Amino acid sequence: MSLRIVSQSMLNAWNQTLIRGMSTQGGSKNIGFVGLGNMGGHMASNLIKAGHKLHVFDISKPACDSLKAKGATVYAKTAELAQNVDFLFTMLPNNDIVDASYEEMTANGVNKNTIFIDSSTIDPTLVKSLQKRISAKGARFIDAPVSGGVPGAEQATLTFMVGGTEAEYNAVKAVLECMGKRITHCGDYGMGQAAKLANNMMLAISMIGVSEAMNLAMRLGLNPKTFAEIINSSTGRCWASEMYNPVPGVTPTAPANNSYKGGFSTDLITKDLGLASGVATSSNTPIPMGALAHQIYRTLKSQGLGSKDFSIVYDFMKNEKY
Amino acid sequence: MSLRIVSQSMLNAWNQTLIRGMSTQGGSKNIGFVGLGNMGGHMASNLIKAGHKLHVFDISKPACDSLKAKGATVYAKTAELAQNVDFLFTMLPNNDIVDASYEEMTANGVNKNTIFIDSSTIDPTLVKSLQKRISAKGARFIDAPVSGGVPGAEQATLTFMVGGTEAEYNAVKAVLECMGKRITHCGDYGMGQAAKLANNMMLAISMIGVSEAMNLAMRLGLNPKTFAEIINSSTGRCWASEMYNPVPGVTPTAPANNSYKGGFSTDLITKDLGLASGVATSSNTPIPMGALAHQIYRTLKSQGLGSKDFSIVYDFMKNEKY
Amino acid sequence: MSLRIVSQSMLNAWNQTLIRGMSTQGGSKNIGFVGLGNMGGHMASNLIKAGHKLHVFDISKPACDSLKAKGATVYAKTAELAQNVDFLFTMLPNNDIVDASYEEMTANGVNKNTIFIDSSTIDPTLVKSLQKRISAKGARFIDAPVSGGVPGAEQATLTFMVGGTEAEYNAVKAVLECMGKRITHCGDYGMGQAAKLANNMMLAISMIGVSEAMNLAMRLGLNPKTFAEIINSSTGRCWASEMYNPVPGVTPTAPANNSYKGGFSTDLITKDLGLASGVATSSNTPIPMGALAHQIYRTLKSQGLGSKDFSIVYDFMKNEKY
Amino acid sequence: MSLRIVSQSMLNAWNQTLIRGMSTQGGSKNIGFVGLGNMGGHMASNLIKAGHKLHVFDISKPACDSLKAKGATVYAKTAELAQNVDFLFTMLPNNDIVDASYEEMTANGVNKNTIFIDSSTIDPTLVKSLQKRISAKGARFIDAPVSGGVPGAEQATLTFMVGGTEAEYNAVKAVLECMGKRITHCGDYGMGQAAKLANNMMLAISMIGVSEAMNLAMRLGLNPKTFAEIINSSTGRCWASEMYNPVPGVTPTAPANNSYKGGFSTDLITKDLGLASGVATSSNTPIPMGALAHQIYRTLKSQGLGSKDFSIVYDFMKNEKY
Repeated sequence: MSLRIVSQSMLNAWNQTLIRGMSTQGGSKNIGFVGLGNMGGHMASNLIKAGHKLHVFDISKPACDSLKAKGATVYAKTAELAQNVDFLFTMLPNNDIVDASYEEMTANGVNKNTIFIDSSTIDPTLVKSLQKRISAKGARFIDAPVSGGVPGAEQATLTFMVGGTEAEYNAVKAVLECMGKRITHCGDYGMGQAAKLANNMMLAISMIGVSEAMNLAMRLGLNPKTFAEIINSSTGRCWASEMYNPVPGVTPTAPANNSYKGGFSTDLITKDLGLASGVATSSNTPIPMGALAHQIYRTLKSQGLGSKDFSIVYDFMKNEKY
Repeated sequence: MSLRIVSQSMLNAWNQTLIRGMSTQGGSKNIGFVGLGNMGGHMASNLIKAGHKLHVFDISKPACDSLKAKGATVYAKTAELAQNVDFLFTMLPNNDIVDASYEEMTANGVNKNTIFIDSSTIDPTLVKSLQKRISAKGARFIDAPVSGGVPGAEQATLTFMVGGTEAEYNAVKAVLECMGKRITHCGDYGMGQAAKLANNMMLAISMIGVSEAMNLAMRLGLNPKTFAEIINSSTGRCWASEMYNPVPGVTPTAPANNSYKGGFSTDLITKDLGLASGVATSSNTPIPMGALAHQIYRTLKSQGLGSKDFSIVYDFMKNEKY
Repeated sequence: MSLRIVSQSMLNAWNQTLIRGMSTQGGSKNIGFVGLGNMGGHMASNLIKAGHKLHVFDISKPACDSLKAKGATVYAKTAELAQNVDFLFTMLPNNDIVDASYEEMTANGVNKNTIFIDSSTIDPTLVKSLQKRISAKGARFIDAPVSGGVPGAEQATLTFMVGGTEAEYNAVKAVLECMGKRITHCGDYGMGQAAKLANNMMLAISMIGVSEAMNLAMRLGLNPKTFAEIINSSTGRCWASEMYNPVPGVTPTAPANNSYKGGFSTDLITKDLGLASGVATSSNTPIPMGALAHQIYRTLKSQGLGSKDFSIVYDFMKNEKY
Repeated sequence: MSLRIVSQSMLNAWNQTLIRGMSTQGGSKNIGFVGLGNMGGHMASNLIKAGHKLHVFDISKPACDSLKAKGATVYAKTAELAQNVDFLFTMLPNNDIVDASYEEMTANGVNKNTIFIDSSTIDPTLVKSLQKRISAKGARFIDAPVSGGVPGAEQATLTFMVGGTEAEYNAVKAVLECMGKRITHCGDYGMGQAAKLANNMMLAISMIGVSEAMNLAMRLGLNPKTFAEIINSSTGRCWASEMYNPVPGVTPTAPANNSYKGGFSTDLITKDLGLASGVATSSNTPIPMGALAHQIYRTLKSQGLGSKDFSIVYDFMKNEKY
């Protein structure tokens, strides 16, 4: 028993050394994951597949059980979890929950070796405030929101938009690569979120624009496939027209061909536009199209279409119920 | 000297033969061109370069003189001009002038071999009405509006969007290829215009969207080049962000780097949105983003920016005159 | 037979004198009415009630029969009708029908004593063009569109917005007063239409604004009646909030309390906004709110709400189908 | 001595009665005022004029000196000030400053007789949270934002929109009447702010609508005064068209006749729309017109017009710089 204690302590020391060595060269890490929802569950699984040791928490017992079955250690308290990990990911629904979660995890001090990485979509201002609070306690905090949706999370093909120092970016890159295929350094703290919000605002606008243009072209007599080809080889092309056309029958893999199920929900794009709208207000940035897009998706949500892919805006606009 | 004459005449004969061989089956045609403005002048010149015999008309004498110097025959009356040509192009500023021009050209009958091709940007409804009037007289009429702007007209790299029958499309393709590099058959009469208007509406929307997203990202602290790279490899990308970024310093060839000179003027995109808005009204098509874009460019025009490239919308929005 | 001719000619002379006398003091006139729809039928009836002799035309036989039963003379040809009247009203659905109707009525000359009065809602540009054509033939033409809807037409409480000279306004005022209670001289030809379109654009905007403000206030916890009282005694008040509140239970007489039936249909306000949008485009007038309002009503129409009162926009926006 | 005790107790009883009596009939109170800016300075002065004893605080020494000269007691610490007053008004620039101010004033306990009244314009959510915090400490807190601007503050003609219980409304009414002429009970805590934000959103929308309608009417040829009369007696009328017409020469007392100076600044309406937009987002309320209005005023602000009266939106839109 004493032997076991000794060897456990030796093992721990060995582990610590190994981890420190690995943090630039790769290798198995102790990784925390708080938030095991549609996205987080897949992301945590991919970290296990890549050989890392996962320490997880979620308020949903089934979500925890699913990760436990794959080898993760489940915690009842995030504060305890946070003490045991090299990297700690949070993947949570909104500003308030992210804020409360960090409050809880760091109230009684932090493990100074931990890098906290928030992959939720939140206000860049909150990122900056969390970074200050956590760095004041001696640990590090960066933002790394994602795009790519549930399929990207499942297939480990997410894009990560990282806000932090060059050194922090380098320190987390290898771990992020277990979950994504494009890891972009956007700038300082909060710039990952800023990039995500501005990109998604553009996406939100262009999806409505494509829906209007396709609908108009079709009502004027054009064949939708013909018009999509024209636009896609011309100045009107965009990701939404090429890769995710909202008209059924045009892009085979798009949600439009699957009754607008799956994909990127109207609820989520509405949430992102709410955040973008907030930072536009605080920075006095005119966003007439972004603001109108926000209201249009909000209207779709009110009409009961919140859980559908956001390209359903085409379907809504094409209606002719006379 | 006689040698020179002979060799010149031989050269001409050789050229004619070569040209005839080069077009698919045709060869040198008698082509009419009515409207020798910024676009039409270059287009007519390119037809001459391709070996065709040009018959031209414009209300501007210098415009006519310039084409005459290149070998074109200048007419005082378009009705007479129209009797002498295989193909007749019109490239005119608006619905009313196009309508009046066809009225004049066809009032006293038509040459039944002539194919009239309108490359102006007009209402698809007018196209259909002109097609009926002209086919009733025994000739043919199709729409073939262009995109690519003055540089495209000069370098013969325009895109033509053709509305007409398959046979008519095939009949005009070789001639259009003397002026453009992409000749698309969009569908029946008016569908060329419909495609152009819907494409340009999308372009108008995405340019404002990109301007808002770039401006927001920059005010939040992102570097414009970094953000442009992120958006261009992500779901927010569009032609305007990739090829024609409105922020100076991002796309080297864009008008943004040349004080928003040249390019596609705010006046012209406002005109196209006016036409798109008209057909959206008559077809009861909701175009919230298109309508807002229309008002934004109209406001720029009112602010004295009508002659600037339409990407100046970024410059207008980024202002902070406190 | 000669007696008959003589007496007819005497009768005519007597009639002319009588008409001249009446035209300033009132008295029975020969009045034509072309277009006996929901509005026109009531208006023509009110002219009969006021003692005038009505000469009517409509493509609907029941509409004609109804007026015949009240004493009107029904015509098969408007050209013939127009020869027999002092005043001729047109109350027709749109630009094209108004244009065609005047073409038909005046093709073979006009009775130079006739004042043509168009009470339809049409483009002010068409008004000006009709005025030129008709005055060139020797008769007079003015615009006098109405507001007040079917109830106003029925109860003879319409507002007439008159475009024409002071003399013409004075010449028609007494007749218009048989159908309305407010006869406003707006200015020269077309200014009646201009006033109506600009007023209705404002109405369209404020109805949506009130709907948004009421809905927001209620979602934040305010009682709708309390909030309506606050707004109506404050800077947010408008006709739509005071007289026609879109929230059921607030204004007892408003269509909101009758399942949004009756009133001013979404179809009609959409039509008026289409005309306003057209003249804004041709006059380069920025109308961002007007254009957005247009798209919102157009969307309601597409959602099958075209025949409902336009205040149904509140009902549409308040939905929460989760 | 016993007499004295008796009389002291009688005096206390009498005082209580008096206070109770005063609370409906008036009488001199100890009133705190935190925030002596453009609005607050005048409001505090009016309380002095009405016979109350003022206890004031502001970070600006001149603002404090000005009130001191009128008889107010100036404090260095708001916590101390708050202990000495029956009513304490806060009139501060934004959410954060209001929040911080209450934190400071109540950190070391409260005088349980004090009614705190916030007349700033802030988020209704913050009102509810402040009410909970302060009532938990034993004092009362209500919201009573104002409309009427600097002239209303100066002339004691403000409108107060009160959120709180019926009893609290009755308790503060007499004091508010020293500063305003219309004291409205809007509902429970936060409902004063909710009413103000929803009313001002409507005002913001209708001012732009009136500007568009006036501009359109004028460009079509109508005289602005004639059109204003038409609209004001018709369905397009609103407070902005009647009392505050944005076209110079129409409403003599409007800022439009004074180079858009004074009045209600573009900066302030933009701020209010930012708050309205925030609560619309959190309550999922569609506000398409409100959101567009927000962006339009924000654009005016960016163009350097933030300090001008918000009716300058007309002047901006009417521009024709060709």
